[in-house]
Amino acid sequence: MGFRELIRKAREEKGSPIVLALDLPPDKPSKLMRRARQVLEAVALHVCALKVNFHLVLPLGLSGVRPLVDRAHELGLACIMDAKLSDIGSTNEVAARYYFEIGGFDALTASPLVGWEGGLEPIFSLARELGKGTILLAYMSHPGASDFFGLELPDGRRFYELVVEKAIAWGADGLVVGATRPETVRDVRELAGPDVLIFAPGVGAQGGEPRAALEAGADFLIVGRSITLAEEPGKAAERILELLKGR
Amino acid sequence: MGFRELIRKAREEKGSPIVLALDLPPDKPSKLMRRARQVLEAVALHVCALKVNFHLVLPLGLSGVRPLVDRAHELGLACIMDAKLSDIGSTNEVAARYYFEIGGFDALTASPLVGWEGGLEPIFSLARELGKGTILLAYMSHPGASDFFGLELPDGRRFYELVVEKAIAWGADGLVVGATRPETVRDVRELAGPDVLIFAPGVGAQGGEPRAALEAGADFLIVGRSITLAEEPGKAAERILELLKGR
Repeated sequence: MGFRELIRKAREEKGSPIVLALDLPPDKPSKLMRRARQVLEAVALHVCALKVNFHLVLPLGLSGVRPLVDRAHELGLACIMDAKLSDIGSTNEVAARYYFEIGGFDALTASPLVGWEGGLEPIFSLARELGKGTILLAYMSHPGASDFFGLELPDGRRFYELVVEKAIAWGADGLVVGATRPETVRDVRELAGPDVLIFAPGVGAQGGEPRAALEAGADFLIVGRSITLAEEPGKAAERILELLKGR
Repeated sequence: MGFRELIRKAREEKGSPIVLALDLPPDKPSKLMRRARQVLEAVALHVCALKVNFHLVLPLGLSGVRPLVDRAHELGLACIMDAKLSDIGSTNEVAARYYFEIGGFDALTASPLVGWEGGLEPIFSLARELGKGTILLAYMSHPGASDFFGLELPDGRRFYELVVEKAIAWGADGLVVGATRPETVRDVRELAGPDVLIFAPGVGAQGGEPRAALEAGADFLIVGRSITLAEEPGKAAERILELLKGR
């Protein structure tokens, strides 16, 4: 089963399009690990995937993160490493191999900026070989994203439209488009067609309205601080899910 | 002493513009650490800085890498984390803080694609606060870099020229331009002026000619595999240095 099928199945089984971004504020490794486990257990019923970033990888190391990934898998979640790989091909490949094989992740994110030959190509090859997924940034959620993603090109298109065109041609499994930009989510869905997965971060702390992003065509909402910083992360996730279902 | 001064002083004292990219092929953590130490000790006389990437950070963790950084400092080298940070500001800030405070690095690299507000801005603020350096990708060394860095804009400029303009306005300490593109190095030096540091990777394994990049205006050459994969890394570094000096 490929990544797209895996995460769609998890979404169906959990009845939730929420990807938990386990982005915890800096702390001692032992405390981070304890908090990460707590949040994961409390939230697992209400989310379909776990997304890990450098908040955990840098202090815990990749082998320190692995038990969390294994536990998330046991709990029926897909696991994404939000590496935003942005290097030359040989480095991207080494990093991707560590994330997939040592970290146990099902998919990873990469930056389109490096382009294909000797850049993203080795990640995509490796992912295909291992049955893993690739997700590219199409338009990020923060204000400054417009500096380059919003750039006008000579043919009148915007930079992100070219990114989407190339991402589809390269065979990306998913695209990241900020939930803070529902019009762009709609646009990317039209450009990319129905098969590619759209992940929308920026819900909550960054101001994105969860239902608007889904209605515009996003498949998954990435939610971090509104859940992880809540006193009761389980209840926070449940509330967001109820909001989405219009209850 | 700021980062620019620090690394310029190291270059002068060592008589070498070479930055050692300690990018080792995947292996067990204990073997990686042994090899990393061996290469560092063998090469330290012939290089002015150490650059670390995910080849070491993922298997060893950041606290595992710290002793290497400390040793490199003892040996008179500046230390750069080649993180190519590409995330939203809050995540970039957490990662940068780990790299500077736990990793002990003097500077880090970031991708311009994320833009300023809520993107790169928090990295630059933190770096300034801590007296650390920031280095942005201006034009990478691999073939696929032209997909986006080489893109033509409506005003006739190329994408990388806009990146350089913004990087200078934002106060970047350094820019990365592939040694495989000496004409672009020359162009970036003209655009950026004399104060910003230009780092040129891609010498050796990727085909970049070391003297050409320096003559075009690069301040530092980033060299990895030609040194790290050599049977005698010290001699390999020495040979490159002699080549540079025209001996």
